[in-house]
Amino acid sequence: MPTFNPPNFDKPGLASAPDARFVAAPADGVLPEGFFSTTNLPTYVRIGGAWRLPREPRMDSALVLDSAGELWVREGRRVKKGDRVAVGQAEDGTEGIFVHAGAFMEEVGSDGEFKFMVSEVSREKPIDYALMAKILVDERDSGGYPIWVCGPALVHSRARNDMVWFIQHGFVGALLAGNAVAVHDIEASIFGTTLGMSGEGKATQGGHGLHMRAINKVRAAGSIAAAVANGTIKDGIMHACVTTNTPFVLTGSIRDDGPLPEVITDAIAAQDAMRAHAVKATMAILIATALHAIATGNMLPAFVTEEDGSLRELATICVDSAEFVVSKLKDRGTHQAFGVVTNAQDFMHILRLYVEREIDQRRIASTAVPAAASAAAAR
Amino acid sequence: MPTFNPPNFDKPGLASAPDARFVAAPADGVLPEGFFSTTNLPTYVRIGGAWRLPREPRMDSALVLDSAGELWVREGRRVKKGDRVAVGQAEDGTEGIFVHAGAFMEEVGSDGEFKFMVSEVSREKPIDYALMAKILVDERDSGGYPIWVCGPALVHSRARNDMVWFIQHGFVGALLAGNAVAVHDIEASIFGTTLGMSGEGKATQGGHGLHMRAINKVRAAGSIAAAVANGTIKDGIMHACVTTNTPFVLTGSIRDDGPLPEVITDAIAAQDAMRAHAVKATMAILIATALHAIATGNMLPAFVTEEDGSLRELATICVDSAEFVVSKLKDRGTHQAFGVVTNAQDFMHILRLYVEREIDQRRIASTAVPAAASAAAAR
Amino acid sequence: MPTFNPPNFDKPGLASAPDARFVAAPADGVLPEGFFSTTNLPTYVRIGGAWRLPREPRMDSALVLDSAGELWVREGRRVKKGDRVAVGQAEDGTEGIFVHAGAFMEEVGSDGEFKFMVSEVSREKPIDYALMAKILVDERDSGGYPIWVCGPALVHSRARNDMVWFIQHGFVGALLAGNAVAVHDIEASIFGTTLGMSGEGKATQGGHGLHMRAINKVRAAGSIAAAVANGTIKDGIMHACVTTNTPFVLTGSIRDDGPLPEVITDAIAAQDAMRAHAVKATMAILIATALHAIATGNMLPAFVTEEDGSLRELATICVDSAEFVVSKLKDRGTHQAFGVVTNAQDFMHILRLYVEREIDQRRIASTAVPAAASAAAAR
Amino acid sequence: MPTFNPPNFDKPGLASAPDARFVAAPADGVLPEGFFSTTNLPTYVRIGGAWRLPREPRMDSALVLDSAGELWVREGRRVKKGDRVAVGQAEDGTEGIFVHAGAFMEEVGSDGEFKFMVSEVSREKPIDYALMAKILVDERDSGGYPIWVCGPALVHSRARNDMVWFIQHGFVGALLAGNAVAVHDIEASIFGTTLGMSGEGKATQGGHGLHMRAINKVRAAGSIAAAVANGTIKDGIMHACVTTNTPFVLTGSIRDDGPLPEVITDAIAAQDAMRAHAVKATMAILIATALHAIATGNMLPAFVTEEDGSLRELATICVDSAEFVVSKLKDRGTHQAFGVVTNAQDFMHILRLYVEREIDQRRIASTAVPAAASAAAAR
Repeated sequence: MPTFNPPNFDKPGLASAPDARFVAAPADGVLPEGFFSTTNLPTYVRIGGAWRLPREPRMDSALVLDSAGELWVREGRRVKKGDRVAVGQAEDGTEGIFVHAGAFMEEVGSDGEFKFMVSEVSREKPIDYALMAKILVDERDSGGYPIWVCGPALVHSRARNDMVWFIQHGFVGALLAGNAVAVHDIEASIFGTTLGMSGEGKATQGGHGLHMRAINKVRAAGSIAAAVANGTIKDGIMHACVTTNTPFVLTGSIRDDGPLPEVITDAIAAQDAMRAHAVKATMAILIATALHAIATGNMLPAFVTEEDGSLRELATICVDSAEFVVSKLKDRGTHQAFGVVTNAQDFMHILRLYVEREIDQRRIASTAVPAAASAAAAR
Repeated sequence: MPTFNPPNFDKPGLASAPDARFVAAPADGVLPEGFFSTTNLPTYVRIGGAWRLPREPRMDSALVLDSAGELWVREGRRVKKGDRVAVGQAEDGTEGIFVHAGAFMEEVGSDGEFKFMVSEVSREKPIDYALMAKILVDERDSGGYPIWVCGPALVHSRARNDMVWFIQHGFVGALLAGNAVAVHDIEASIFGTTLGMSGEGKATQGGHGLHMRAINKVRAAGSIAAAVANGTIKDGIMHACVTTNTPFVLTGSIRDDGPLPEVITDAIAAQDAMRAHAVKATMAILIATALHAIATGNMLPAFVTEEDGSLRELATICVDSAEFVVSKLKDRGTHQAFGVVTNAQDFMHILRLYVEREIDQRRIASTAVPAAASAAAAR
Repeated sequence: MPTFNPPNFDKPGLASAPDARFVAAPADGVLPEGFFSTTNLPTYVRIGGAWRLPREPRMDSALVLDSAGELWVREGRRVKKGDRVAVGQAEDGTEGIFVHAGAFMEEVGSDGEFKFMVSEVSREKPIDYALMAKILVDERDSGGYPIWVCGPALVHSRARNDMVWFIQHGFVGALLAGNAVAVHDIEASIFGTTLGMSGEGKATQGGHGLHMRAINKVRAAGSIAAAVANGTIKDGIMHACVTTNTPFVLTGSIRDDGPLPEVITDAIAAQDAMRAHAVKATMAILIATALHAIATGNMLPAFVTEEDGSLRELATICVDSAEFVVSKLKDRGTHQAFGVVTNAQDFMHILRLYVEREIDQRRIASTAVPAAASAAAAR
Repeated sequence: MPTFNPPNFDKPGLASAPDARFVAAPADGVLPEGFFSTTNLPTYVRIGGAWRLPREPRMDSALVLDSAGELWVREGRRVKKGDRVAVGQAEDGTEGIFVHAGAFMEEVGSDGEFKFMVSEVSREKPIDYALMAKILVDERDSGGYPIWVCGPALVHSRARNDMVWFIQHGFVGALLAGNAVAVHDIEASIFGTTLGMSGEGKATQGGHGLHMRAINKVRAAGSIAAAVANGTIKDGIMHACVTTNTPFVLTGSIRDDGPLPEVITDAIAAQDAMRAHAVKATMAILIATALHAIATGNMLPAFVTEEDGSLRELATICVDSAEFVVSKLKDRGTHQAFGVVTNAQDFMHILRLYVEREIDQRRIASTAVPAAASAAAAR
């Protein structure tokens, strides 16, 4: 249990603090404009030159000085017209109210302020797709090397088309994934199902064997590339990688069926193959996979070394439907990871929309500029 | 532990079954076309008129008859060129292979077939936004009464604009929510924050008191409607409800700050107010709230009674970022609920896109039809 | 959307049904003993020989016939003294009330009854430790081969001592795990930390390198067994396996640091090593690992073949802190898995307590029996 | 994106730093004792008086100086016998290696050290039951007022007996809960089920109405206390509260069936009733309820004011099966909450065991001390 650090009221700021100011409540259950909103931390209020602790402390309430001179914390709804209510927003004593955020060590953020919503990773935080789209387009247009690390949920859940779009439009430096991503993608191309489930999410008859039949066809062809060439694989993520010459690394695991011919089954050799891309990475997008995300996080620097030797943070986005995977990634040292807590399908769909919008805006801006420039030249 | 039910090989289908057919593997690690893909259930293979269990059973593998007449389950990668591999897809014995799905009671689905992906609610299932959009537009255009039941994540996470759009375009029969949804929505309108967090997800200085200031302003105005009228609330969900005369019910809970004036603090009175809308509901959309979703599920019939007395299922969509809430809703009797496991912000954004698309398609179709009709009339 | 199947009131049971019986409510807000408790499904009530649907249907309420002869669904709290309330518990029409559970296909369980808590996997279900303990002791005492498949959370969270106890007391046929389990276990033995975190859950200074130092010491020794022999590893899970000759398989993954010498880095070779134990397994306990649990589930039959050729279900327990992993395991075909949704540390601790208790009870019973037998012999 | 702060090599500690020391690897794949274990942050190594960045940075690896004088980050397994490997554990430059943790703002903890496992709430952290037991027994023995705030999972999952034990042994100052906790507890007492589910977790026939029948019996009796008095309620949590005069507050919500007579249905009146206990609280235990935990957190100070005016932190334990609820509680300002991520049933069972053990140890200690004292007196 943390121990209590008493405040030092002799230090400059607090020693010269004024008394707190109180204003009458304008109506029953209504506080005066600018009322002080309490926290649950020890709070000292200067009255008649003395620092006092109010009774019945709690957060989200007001400070009320009653007619007997007693100081209370009161919910706004309980305040009566005319009650004297403390006003002020400063919590550092400069308006006569001091919230002692450092009363117990490690209780609050490093800046010593009481705050809501300080969790780093939460489904309750907004997702800034516009910023992610801007970074992605910047990366592409400046010759960056974004690596995408994906789990099979991407294929299960029909984000497959969106992933193909990103590959075909030059946003994927390399794709790192496991056997399952390729298996379900190829099952979808050949049979229209993933793990025997239709695109509408229904289990199909005889469906449990379809991924095995897909694997067998590729093994018969000899490689994914050969199966694309002979028309067995007609579309999808692996098809897009092969036809656009986008490098991919498929690494093996003990969960694998098959595996497909290109899968690197030795974990050490697989790490070396992943690392060849990680050392070149200028951005990382990790989607719906704990195993591959943490494996990649282990081998990624937290920064990019530019050609001129300068450093910048390596933008790392980790998408998962639960906070746990992102926290786990951070807990294993990938502190720079920015977490997006959502469904992989929805993430891919909205990200693509924002990237398309960003591209459009840049096109308009770039065509507008020369026009303006030539207009200027004509003057 | 379930007990074993031995198969009855004397019943018509099995008694007349042929021997299983075996085909040579075309290459090392490659199975013949049409190979039988195993399950983990007891599987009987008819060979020389006798039903035999293979050794070393497992799923996702092949049945191999070795030169000594022994029958094995073997992973495809371990099969050698020329090995005799069973072919056939039927699991009911008609091709000489019988998967005894009923060996242990309750082991598999009611149709007795081994299947993958049978969970009712899973983040791994695709989300059929097109179908949901179609149902919503149908409801609106046929005078239905869809009730929307929302939690504060809708506001936190910037789906607020999308919710406003649905209200303004006639898709909301009534909005049922708690104090927090309205508080954060109004905080966003007045201060641009939710729980003191900016739209980019950063905690702001002094932010922890902003929701209290928002509440106080509305209490001072006397009601949400009055605060809209006097310009305190300029936009957002509550603004849209007030300006479009969309009915809303705000119910109280012990977690509430304030509360806002319209909030019904008595749980019984609040249930009655919710129920007045539930009895009229023709569809329910429950987003990011366990409390309100289950409360509404408790008072909703599983069906709609049409004016002609016929019945249809009441479409009930439950959106949450975890499977648990949807399962809990079903576990409390709302079996008709269809679960969507995703982030509320992303759900709202994509659903709106699909609804806009559905509306466009219907407009094109409806303008095309008269044209065709008039062309026909001209003939 | 499912279509409506109207009930057939001409079929024997319904055609001869009596009228529903109504009893006066004894007080305001109190229902008569034996009242009929409603569901949210279409419900037909026989009154004067005719089947009628009540108005305002919902679950958890009563059927009230008002003085005008109108039939309503009413919450118990709204019923007044003397109101006529339907009584009866049968839902099949035999008491004049028919709940049409089959109104919409797939709406309810296979037995057509409206039920709560039908999810297969839920943290809200009780955990039957006594049954699990009984099965485990039975397995040990009858020479079974239980395989334990564990993730690193077992070590992180101090269930390590309990796992050692199970190994030392003969409950572990084989241990299947990854590099991380052994690394953290050995780090704990050498440095007293796991991933640099103390047993109290605090990050320690310089702690991030400790697992690397542990790995290096074992690599220097040449093998885990050698590091046990030379005193580097003094206690823990791996120490217990080595000193009791309990077989273990450590399989590699792309996330691995090191790896440790015994780790099988090739996924195919690793599967073969795991499978050698899976074919002998008579029980499986899968704790806190999605990767290894699903890998094992893939290669396990759903049943055990006894020496006499008879079959029984293979008891499969899957422990995870979220419903998702268990559902995923089932969705990939391991339907026999029984899910326990809890923390790995707590599971191990309580399971051990129950096993100790079961052993004690059997000892008492077995010493009591011979005594009784000798007493009988003496007669 | 954070910007890069270059290190200042002129500041005292770094300006006088020695060159890094390199030692030959003793064998292939084995690092020298005391090797420097890398992080993913920018790391400067002093060689020949100059600070150099190694190539191919990543965490969990070694620094290798090759024969050409090039500096690399290399996985231990790739190091060859005789390779020169940097040694040292200091990351502040004092041994010639400087990890620039402050390279990007907010990247690491406030102490500027790279660490694993920094998440505040994680299922991967150990649970210190011994400490919690010690605090609880201290609270009881010193006349504290621990408030327990519980959700229905406590009853569903058979932790009911353990909760009764805590009430009967004086560990519960007050119990704050909702209607559902009391309903399921009373259903269990009367019918042996919770939500119609048996203690073994099976849905029972007709079970969905049992909680309604339990409610009706208590409404008929007039109050929970009356139903205890008349023998309707024979055991369980509410029975223990009534028979031990432990105060309880049951607050209403829109999800409630019934409700039971004692339930306070108005949220404002309910908050006032809860707050009467919160102002007296010296400890809080919040189990398996988001609604009641956050409601209580809102009205609890983060500290206790002792009779002598001194302050101490108010021990607040929040138990839930997912990280989310605890994080949410903290995000709403209850920063002092200590999260335990586990199943409510298991938590209660183990906590009770540790409390029983703590009591036993204190009894032994207290009987031992007088004995020693009298022995001393005899001398």
